[in-house]
Amino acid sequence: MHVGFIGLGNMGSGMAANLLKAGHTVAAYNRSAVKVDALVQLGATAAHTVADACRGDVVQTMLADDDAVESVTLGPGGIVASLPPGGTHISSSTVSVALARRLAAAHAEAGQSYVAAPVFGRPEAAAAAKLFVIAAGAPAVLERVTPLFDVIGQRTFVVSEQPYNANLVKLSGNFLLATVIESLGEAIALVGKAGVDPVSYVDILTSTLFSAPAYATYGDLIARKRYEPAGFAATLGLKDVRLALQAAEELAVPLPLGSLLRDRFLSLLANGGGQLDWSAIATLSERDAGL
Amino acid sequence: MHVGFIGLGNMGSGMAANLLKAGHTVAAYNRSAVKVDALVQLGATAAHTVADACRGDVVQTMLADDDAVESVTLGPGGIVASLPPGGTHISSSTVSVALARRLAAAHAEAGQSYVAAPVFGRPEAAAAAKLFVIAAGAPAVLERVTPLFDVIGQRTFVVSEQPYNANLVKLSGNFLLATVIESLGEAIALVGKAGVDPVSYVDILTSTLFSAPAYATYGDLIARKRYEPAGFAATLGLKDVRLALQAAEELAVPLPLGSLLRDRFLSLLANGGGQLDWSAIATLSERDAGL
Amino acid sequence: MHVGFIGLGNMGSGMAANLLKAGHTVAAYNRSAVKVDALVQLGATAAHTVADACRGDVVQTMLADDDAVESVTLGPGGIVASLPPGGTHISSSTVSVALARRLAAAHAEAGQSYVAAPVFGRPEAAAAAKLFVIAAGAPAVLERVTPLFDVIGQRTFVVSEQPYNANLVKLSGNFLLATVIESLGEAIALVGKAGVDPVSYVDILTSTLFSAPAYATYGDLIARKRYEPAGFAATLGLKDVRLALQAAEELAVPLPLGSLLRDRFLSLLANGGGQLDWSAIATLSERDAGL
Amino acid sequence: MHVGFIGLGNMGSGMAANLLKAGHTVAAYNRSAVKVDALVQLGATAAHTVADACRGDVVQTMLADDDAVESVTLGPGGIVASLPPGGTHISSSTVSVALARRLAAAHAEAGQSYVAAPVFGRPEAAAAAKLFVIAAGAPAVLERVTPLFDVIGQRTFVVSEQPYNANLVKLSGNFLLATVIESLGEAIALVGKAGVDPVSYVDILTSTLFSAPAYATYGDLIARKRYEPAGFAATLGLKDVRLALQAAEELAVPLPLGSLLRDRFLSLLANGGGQLDWSAIATLSERDAGL
Repeated sequence: MHVGFIGLGNMGSGMAANLLKAGHTVAAYNRSAVKVDALVQLGATAAHTVADACRGDVVQTMLADDDAVESVTLGPGGIVASLPPGGTHISSSTVSVALARRLAAAHAEAGQSYVAAPVFGRPEAAAAAKLFVIAAGAPAVLERVTPLFDVIGQRTFVVSEQPYNANLVKLSGNFLLATVIESLGEAIALVGKAGVDPVSYVDILTSTLFSAPAYATYGDLIARKRYEPAGFAATLGLKDVRLALQAAEELAVPLPLGSLLRDRFLSLLANGGGQLDWSAIATLSERDAGL
Repeated sequence: MHVGFIGLGNMGSGMAANLLKAGHTVAAYNRSAVKVDALVQLGATAAHTVADACRGDVVQTMLADDDAVESVTLGPGGIVASLPPGGTHISSSTVSVALARRLAAAHAEAGQSYVAAPVFGRPEAAAAAKLFVIAAGAPAVLERVTPLFDVIGQRTFVVSEQPYNANLVKLSGNFLLATVIESLGEAIALVGKAGVDPVSYVDILTSTLFSAPAYATYGDLIARKRYEPAGFAATLGLKDVRLALQAAEELAVPLPLGSLLRDRFLSLLANGGGQLDWSAIATLSERDAGL
Repeated sequence: MHVGFIGLGNMGSGMAANLLKAGHTVAAYNRSAVKVDALVQLGATAAHTVADACRGDVVQTMLADDDAVESVTLGPGGIVASLPPGGTHISSSTVSVALARRLAAAHAEAGQSYVAAPVFGRPEAAAAAKLFVIAAGAPAVLERVTPLFDVIGQRTFVVSEQPYNANLVKLSGNFLLATVIESLGEAIALVGKAGVDPVSYVDILTSTLFSAPAYATYGDLIARKRYEPAGFAATLGLKDVRLALQAAEELAVPLPLGSLLRDRFLSLLANGGGQLDWSAIATLSERDAGL
Repeated sequence: MHVGFIGLGNMGSGMAANLLKAGHTVAAYNRSAVKVDALVQLGATAAHTVADACRGDVVQTMLADDDAVESVTLGPGGIVASLPPGGTHISSSTVSVALARRLAAAHAEAGQSYVAAPVFGRPEAAAAAKLFVIAAGAPAVLERVTPLFDVIGQRTFVVSEQPYNANLVKLSGNFLLATVIESLGEAIALVGKAGVDPVSYVDILTSTLFSAPAYATYGDLIARKRYEPAGFAATLGLKDVRLALQAAEELAVPLPLGSLLRDRFLSLLANGGGQLDWSAIATLSERDAGL
């Protein structure tokens, strides 16, 4: 397939490279052009504008936040203005449900298709084609683009015909990760203050009832107090919790744990920890325990 | 070894049976004698009193709550009064840290040893010798009784020389399980109200970042609303959260998630749900969302 | 003074009438013109457009929410476009801190002055000139318009040279009122379930330590379950709590009570209570207690 | 009336002195006898044991906590053992609902009457006979002892025929005071970080919607950061919140604000603030805001 790929950060570079490896042609665009060169080495064409990346059947975006996605999609010279009728925009960024709704409407009005396909996985998983793809959109369109998902991820889950529901599922996943962090922070403060070794404690948890990657990853960071460099910064954690709370508010769904997490991230930011890994909210449990 | 075993409920029966299978002699006691007969069929001796079960080197208890353990251990004709000097009491019940401290002191004063060895695992795991044993006590004593742990469980973790720390770790594990339940309840209410199928959603979670038994077990119960019969009743969930909060208060460790969970369980009980499975606190997230 | 007055709802009508009584000339504008007639009876001139109301020294606005104030102020034919250089806009609506910042900037750029003067008090207080005015802005400008505040309220408090701080104080006041409601709801559920009469209980509170209007008003509504008709609807309560939380987030100030209140209002709305008085969040404490 | 008075601390001394002034005879007992001398100067008889104070019609107790009241009432040589049948024990201490239940039962079994009469007010109010008395008990008994309440307080509220309900109302009052403190702490952190002067802010609140003693007292302490010497220590604040939560748990009433307050007090204690005034939980809002 002819794919335009916009957004060559840590995640997008790996995803686009895997599209190339699978034999698709890729027109690659990035705001800072230096990232494009690396992909051209692998066989991509350089797109010099967003419009340049919109000349194929499909354009996929993997950008940092709502502002970036909104500007690239709805701005002048953006995807809606450039993609031919019948073309498909696959949006893999973690964006708000509200923006996802607006993008779907704008594409529909322009006679284009819009599919949401955010992913679970970190940059290494993107490079190794081991992502999990959470897809939502019209069934006929999803069927057409599923071959692309198959080469960037290990498994695709179709969750809804409404694209924004894929974003909601993605946000809920980050919400659940944050609850894992907070619960580990509290538990480790408790047993740690009683004299139990945190590293051994995390080993017990992950060897028994909590043998999931989330507990292993964050349990280790918290037990060893390794909050720098950030795998995912606290500012981004706050952003995602805020997006989950906003989506929940639109649906009139209270999330008491989400509220608690929001307060934790605000406290961490107010005390200068915005650039630490988001698991550093565990330091607040320590502090509250007088440790 | 000559082991007395007191408390032949769903958990204790399996544990005692595995001691027998491994060649240990077991003098079995239970308040209601009918449970003893089944074990006698497997080769145990019937103990007619607590004192009868205290004639060997070791007596192990697996009882329902603080009151039962306190009465059997410290009451007239109890273990402290009956066990010979040098004997060891292995306490596997989930009890409060405060009681664990008192038991250790009483046994020490009587020249006996006290070891805490609560377990992670449900009745099926007890029957299959697949429990995880969380052990704490004096190293020399633990060394002597570890062969017993090896035949009832798949792995033993030694967490501290202070017996009560094993109880604290056990309580913290149940606290973490309850946070899993609450977080799943909130997330499922959120995506469910948006139209995502809860069963598919749980499948996504457990196939990706949350591939731990805790998420699979409770995600399934919540998505399918299977709160009866209770695997672990809400009243017991409240009890364990309360014990965790009490232990935390003694240590001056705030547990905001624990506070939230306590309120959830109280609300469930106030509305008649005390006998439902503890995962039924997820119904409160649904109710708050107007579902 | 020549005053334009925009927004003749329950609050604005009383305020504008008091300006007339004190001898000021008033050009009155309202989206629905029928409210204007009543004021013309009292001596006002009818303004047929926003621009018509901007021909004097000062224009005062008292509107429902951010959208209304933004449209009237920044929209085409709005106050910024119509008010002569040197004119002053007194904004008495309860708006977000973010909008207050933008309005101040827009007026400054147009060579106009902007003063925030939200008020504490209900419609009866507005009619009786018994409001409390929370004012903020440049001292020289405030000095000029203080005579207007003196005729609509019983006392004026100057809180800052930054207009948005008056809005923040107003929002914090509504936040505090909501905490009073929530705390009364919990306390009344507690003593009520034990058999103490709620009306007598509120009488005790307001006769002793809690002799403030807030406790008398809301204690009475809750004890007598009088949630209709709404003095201040739950949807508006949610809006104000949300504005307080947004302002707090910009400042990186966690408000745990605000988070709890937001969840309460969402739960009330999700269960169909949006049009009840905001004190109806007390019904959630009752429900959680199984009453 | 012949009254025994047990417990001559800051509160009890003033109460007993007012009984004397009104013409009642008082046999005064205190664990540390030096407090008794001062009262003897005012006309009291010194009681050398608890039993000595139980020779009249009525004995009133005003002690620090559950332990003190339990020991004086139920211990050897205590009130139940010493008071003649038909005598009345007026308990004015702030105790748990559970203890109040046990005391009532013990007195009933001994053919004695038990009345709960905790008070609202600080030591100055006790000295000035300006307390508010919250009374509960059998109507006939209350009628007999009401003349005593009239001379120690400015007003008596009868809340129930069940003595423990007076304790519940008292505990709920302290719970409400703590919510006032927490809400002021959060609001002052918010407006303070934005640059509004805290002292002026509290003046606005107490001049308008929040003109109750609770807001004036605690607003002033928080705005001026005057947490020493403690009027009421944080350790006592935690104790009363804990008693309110325990009573609520027995009734199956969740108190989310109570849970939040408990965590605040624990955090303050864990960080060395147990001897500060309980309004010092406001420092946690400041800290969380990075102030």
